[in-house]
Amino acid sequence: MYKILCTTLAIIALSATLPLTAPAQTPSSSDAGAIAKQLQRYELTLNAADIDGIMELYAENAVFMPQHSLPVVGRDAVRSAYRHVFDTIKLNIRFEIDEVRPLSSDWAFARTRSTGTVKVLASDQAPIPEANQELFVLHREDDGQWRFVRYIFSTTNPPTQR
Amino acid sequence: MYKILCTTLAIIALSATLPLTAPAQTPSSSDAGAIAKQLQRYELTLNAADIDGIMELYAENAVFMPQHSLPVVGRDAVRSAYRHVFDTIKLNIRFEIDEVRPLSSDWAFARTRSTGTVKVLASDQAPIPEANQELFVLHREDDGQWRFVRYIFSTTNPPTQR
Repeated sequence: MYKILCTTLAIIALSATLPLTAPAQTPSSSDAGAIAKQLQRYELTLNAADIDGIMELYAENAVFMPQHSLPVVGRDAVRSAYRHVFDTIKLNIRFEIDEVRPLSSDWAFARTRSTGTVKVLASDQAPIPEANQELFVLHREDDGQWRFVRYIFSTTNPPTQR
Repeated sequence: MYKILCTTLAIIALSATLPLTAPAQTPSSSDAGAIAKQLQRYELTLNAADIDGIMELYAENAVFMPQHSLPVVGRDAVRSAYRHVFDTIKLNIRFEIDEVRPLSSDWAFARTRSTGTVKVLASDQAPIPEANQELFVLHREDDGQWRFVRYIFSTTNPPTQR
């Protein structure tokens, strides 16, 4: 993607509204709230570099799809990926939940945007602004908790250069 | 993200396997095949810069989440976004389907990776290699067709610079 393209896409995105009228199937009325709480926990645990807390939010057989990486498949690999993240950077970000959509009694998706800063631990450089969009697919597991089955993010900032 | 971080994430990702054992709920056995066909149509229509063909693959109230853009919400905005893409670049990419997961009779997700080239139309520059990962949430609409409700992609290449 290129700057001119991205700028126009951003304008298109900003000018759009959100007419989400398609009905969910058979979700409980409390599911959206329970999922929102999990997303809030993700924000807290990311900012705290709390790997165990983060892994409590991931389902069995999860796939984490961070930008600039091939998909990270399975809980062990996901844990290793976060460990390396927290060995390298310190995050200070806030999530805004754009939507939580229960699809059935056990499946849902959620869409968020996050903004804040990232600090490279091995550098004296000041924290750098970050802005991303995220899509989560969630499953309610046997213990009744909603957890991330698939999670992908990408930056919403324009590219620095090609 | 940073190059050292991304390289390690890529290694973690490559070394992982894909133990997808969680059962789907009540999908038809033909759903995965029908969804795979829609993904193949997306590859064809993207490479052909066929906006009408692409829009046949998007559901009502769709959200397109391209990297370097805020979310593009609603069919009109999605159409405008693709028009601008095809006014700017020519794609030549192939999708590899990593998984198609029907979640119920009417909902599913799919995960893909794509590789190929992008050519800037207003430039004499040679086509540039591209590599992305994609996550689609699909809904079966009233006419029986599976269509994209949410679609996000991000590059799997390391960053060029920060």
